[in-house]
Amino acid sequence: MSTVDQPYRGDFVDSPGGRREHHFALSVYFEDTDAYAVVYYANYLKFMERARSDMIRAAGVDQVAELERSGSAYVVADLTIQYKRPGRLGDDLVVVSTVEEVRAASVVIQQRVIRSGELLTDARVTAAFLDAKGRPQRQPHERVEKFKQIAEPGR
Amino acid sequence: MSTVDQPYRGDFVDSPGGRREHHFALSVYFEDTDAYAVVYYANYLKFMERARSDMIRAAGVDQVAELERSGSAYVVADLTIQYKRPGRLGDDLVVVSTVEEVRAASVVIQQRVIRSGELLTDARVTAAFLDAKGRPQRQPHERVEKFKQIAEPGR
Amino acid sequence: MSTVDQPYRGDFVDSPGGRREHHFALSVYFEDTDAYAVVYYANYLKFMERARSDMIRAAGVDQVAELERSGSAYVVADLTIQYKRPGRLGDDLVVVSTVEEVRAASVVIQQRVIRSGELLTDARVTAAFLDAKGRPQRQPHERVEKFKQIAEPGR
Amino acid sequence: MSTVDQPYRGDFVDSPGGRREHHFALSVYFEDTDAYAVVYYANYLKFMERARSDMIRAAGVDQVAELERSGSAYVVADLTIQYKRPGRLGDDLVVVSTVEEVRAASVVIQQRVIRSGELLTDARVTAAFLDAKGRPQRQPHERVEKFKQIAEPGR
Repeated sequence: MSTVDQPYRGDFVDSPGGRREHHFALSVYFEDTDAYAVVYYANYLKFMERARSDMIRAAGVDQVAELERSGSAYVVADLTIQYKRPGRLGDDLVVVSTVEEVRAASVVIQQRVIRSGELLTDARVTAAFLDAKGRPQRQPHERVEKFKQIAEPGR
Repeated sequence: MSTVDQPYRGDFVDSPGGRREHHFALSVYFEDTDAYAVVYYANYLKFMERARSDMIRAAGVDQVAELERSGSAYVVADLTIQYKRPGRLGDDLVVVSTVEEVRAASVVIQQRVIRSGELLTDARVTAAFLDAKGRPQRQPHERVEKFKQIAEPGR
Repeated sequence: MSTVDQPYRGDFVDSPGGRREHHFALSVYFEDTDAYAVVYYANYLKFMERARSDMIRAAGVDQVAELERSGSAYVVADLTIQYKRPGRLGDDLVVVSTVEEVRAASVVIQQRVIRSGELLTDARVTAAFLDAKGRPQRQPHERVEKFKQIAEPGR
Repeated sequence: MSTVDQPYRGDFVDSPGGRREHHFALSVYFEDTDAYAVVYYANYLKFMERARSDMIRAAGVDQVAELERSGSAYVVADLTIQYKRPGRLGDDLVVVSTVEEVRAASVVIQQRVIRSGELLTDARVTAAFLDAKGRPQRQPHERVEKFKQIAEPGR
């Protein structure tokens, strides 16, 4: 199979400040824009969700298998976002995600959308781990450990 | 023209607490849901934007004409949202919006999505009034007055 | 409950030509448009699906209960669409749907999107009735009868 | 800049049959799915548009600059699609596009969405080249030549 047939995957990179960041790059297509000729505000949440799904995968979790097997999934409980500058058609963007805090049944993630060093949006997302009935449940122990290592690689 | 050919319009209603609320009702369709069988988290922002557009229209502003004429538009600068309960396919929802604060170049709106009295999401949105170049600009004086009257009908 | 809290519902109307049409009205919001300042081409399919869901509901079928109970659903198998004129932000549109043909396991529906008498898009959709495993299945007999009556009210 | 910061780009590949195909790979995220747990039917059109934009870029056309400079854009005039098998959350897909016919003011493209050799959807799209007022216009001569070479590399 040609590499062109392999979809894009993000990855963890070590930031200059010694933190572990997850990077996820994407391009802005017509579907993402609106009549004001900028990225429609709800679509940044799509970009951020793609990046979180990729981050969870890069951390070794098979979210799809987990959803099918147990009905469990990470669901956003809380979100704060500042829109600083507009993204535009054709822009190449990077979603930079860092794990801010790891709790028993949730993870707090900072997600910034960046265009060539310029900050477009800055968000803080609390993702709760829910069972098939939508009730919060504890994350598996080893996953908590993994997220903590991402959050504080030096410890 | 048959009334079935008239699209839905929301309206301002007086709440029991004496406040002026804008109500905007909608149904959840397949397009709004995801594989977890609930409303996809970004789509509440679409519901909220429909409600804000309708509210601005109900307040007498022709947003489309304004965008075409001057390139001005209300753009979300800042958003906080809590997801309390999931919406599901076929649900009938109401977006309840109240003007919290009126500033020279922006408006702060609280927007709650409600299903038969149950709170699904609770958001606070700062909408900035931008010119064609995306720079903040003062809202017309009479509009500030109108939004203030919505915010505090008693004053 | 105030009528403003009731979401829009479409309905069947008798056309001048003696046919039975389903009408579903909607407004174009920012979410529907793209950077070319027109309705994004995929979003007409959302409008058409809203209209079909409403038509199925108006015909007395509870699609949501059916999906939950048996996993059955109508799924598009085949679609042809001509884009004649662009829809724009703020437009009021009507999706006019007519049942063209009723088969054991599928229905063929013509769906036109119209703005004040002007035809924007003209589509022909084959919706197949699938079971929980995604296999075609016969529609219940009384539903076939109902759809046939919609298709040919005079017979 | 790390390669992880480079968004995915598709490319032209020579098919076993000697034709020139454009390949564009992508993964299915939550945003693409619906409550039936499959890719929502309108979203294949988004995948196809991403692939077409990428194909036009790979053919050397800067669609964004063109839209900004002259208001010209490729707009879908006509579309036929068969939905053969459902895509699901987490699937890796490839959109395979071939130029079928090149006319003065439009291009006919076949676009198939494939998952590990399995055909999910098969579409035929006529993209018209429109000016800022939405009127059909002739494509630049060298572009017609380029598309013709893609359509028939052997000639």
